[in-house]
Amino acid sequence: MTLKEYARLVEDALERRLAAPDPADMTAPAVGEAPPLLLEAMRYSVMAGGKRLRPAMLLACADMLGVDRDRAMPYACALEMIHTYSLIHDDLPGMDDDTLRRGRPTNHVVFGVGQAILAGDGLLNEAMETMAGAALAEPTPEGMRQGLGALYEIAACAGIRGMIGGQCADLYAEREKVASGQMLGYIHAGKTARLLTAPLRAAARLAGCAEDSAEMQALTAFGEAFGLLFQAEDDILDVTGDAATLGKSTGKDAASGKLTWVTLYGLDGAREHADALRDEAERSLAPLGDRAAFFYDLLRSLRGRRA
Amino acid sequence: MTLKEYARLVEDALERRLAAPDPADMTAPAVGEAPPLLLEAMRYSVMAGGKRLRPAMLLACADMLGVDRDRAMPYACALEMIHTYSLIHDDLPGMDDDTLRRGRPTNHVVFGVGQAILAGDGLLNEAMETMAGAALAEPTPEGMRQGLGALYEIAACAGIRGMIGGQCADLYAEREKVASGQMLGYIHAGKTARLLTAPLRAAARLAGCAEDSAEMQALTAFGEAFGLLFQAEDDILDVTGDAATLGKSTGKDAASGKLTWVTLYGLDGAREHADALRDEAERSLAPLGDRAAFFYDLLRSLRGRRA
Repeated sequence: MTLKEYARLVEDALERRLAAPDPADMTAPAVGEAPPLLLEAMRYSVMAGGKRLRPAMLLACADMLGVDRDRAMPYACALEMIHTYSLIHDDLPGMDDDTLRRGRPTNHVVFGVGQAILAGDGLLNEAMETMAGAALAEPTPEGMRQGLGALYEIAACAGIRGMIGGQCADLYAEREKVASGQMLGYIHAGKTARLLTAPLRAAARLAGCAEDSAEMQALTAFGEAFGLLFQAEDDILDVTGDAATLGKSTGKDAASGKLTWVTLYGLDGAREHADALRDEAERSLAPLGDRAAFFYDLLRSLRGRRA
Repeated sequence: MTLKEYARLVEDALERRLAAPDPADMTAPAVGEAPPLLLEAMRYSVMAGGKRLRPAMLLACADMLGVDRDRAMPYACALEMIHTYSLIHDDLPGMDDDTLRRGRPTNHVVFGVGQAILAGDGLLNEAMETMAGAALAEPTPEGMRQGLGALYEIAACAGIRGMIGGQCADLYAEREKVASGQMLGYIHAGKTARLLTAPLRAAARLAGCAEDSAEMQALTAFGEAFGLLFQAEDDILDVTGDAATLGKSTGKDAASGKLTWVTLYGLDGAREHADALRDEAERSLAPLGDRAAFFYDLLRSLRGRRA
């Protein structure tokens, strides 16, 4: 299966999970159901395309480890909901204050700031509810422990010691013009790498891999290196302006003086850094052998971006 | 144990769970730890006092049903984190745009809008992480199922079919000047009653009560009636201006023309409605007998507010 094929599966599952409201009449929501307007705002951003990289990585890793795909799907969808909520909140006034995302007006431009805040909150909460419901429905105690473990991994990676922590530091560094390697490392590790490690660790938990298993160690090392590489490549592309197949690359980071690998170490320094990360990511996959073909391909697709 | 005694226990547990950052140096956060600034912003709102009503209800219900208090505490803390995040986001520009809460500047006034959004996101995520961690640490499969069940109850009550749904409808009704009993019912059920039912249902799950057990049914019925009563009394107090021991009552809802029981049915109509809800709440407790003393007292304390 390719990234695009996994992405298609995720789209279908998300479409079922966040079904379009009918009738979309806000004046008469039924107690115990979500208001049509809220679902509409959540769907607007979740169904806006995107590569579905994180959920695809989760499904690919689940396939690799022999986890049933239907079992893994709720966690894949949850991860995409979390990624989407972080984008909605990131775009808000007071954060990046962006009016466009993926060529369309941002959520708050369409629904208003208040409803956009709630759409983001709703996606984060719905992600957790989806995972908890899936774990509760597991037929065996061991399956439930594995599902709960996957939920915990995703929550930890998305939380104050992971993604949210990275966003806080990012916002702070930009406002206060902090330019240090340590700060940059913290921001990228938290904001980007943790949420790209989450799908791998969550799939490993679903497969019952222990923390000290060869699989968990290899996947964690790969996720962290790949996540940092992904961000470094994004920083480079932001400057070289190469059309991205992955990442956002708009040139605006460099223009705004945002702290990036390029602004801190120059283009050559950033490229050296990226090359080292690529080697590290590739080395990390070795213990998984041929089973890891999807992830070798993923690494190559990143290389192609600035070929 | 009284509400105040339970509140004290919750404060201590929250203080331990969200320990003050040391050293509070934002320029050098350590990978895998939360940034000091984020912890500070979260603590600012969580440790700002408040009655701790929801976590106290969870602990009281756990005591009533014979659930170990230490086992229940993570869920009680999580519930307070969720309540607090909803207040932080509610106060933001684009939502209620409030500059004062509990006599202190609101979170975004102190930390800025961006950091306040993240502090709210962080509290919601941390609530889920806290509960998932507690459930995973349960020594038996049955304990884990119960803990996961409590997490699911709280997530469901706080989510798009519960609290967030109610907030969406509330915001919509205010902007669009919708004045209907159905809308009001939806808003109060979602925004207020679900999060006051959550502690009871979560505690019952921890105790292993099945959905069709007498306890679960009584507690759910009580929570829903009590939650609606709590909001109705708040609406009444908002107008009569009686100093509240519970609730916020500032007179500003009536002044702003917000949809409330009083603006919709008048003061007498709202009082009749509240009396009916009080009777219903009291009747719901009957199957629990003397064990429910805490909750009878809670009902009486609400009555006292407009005595």
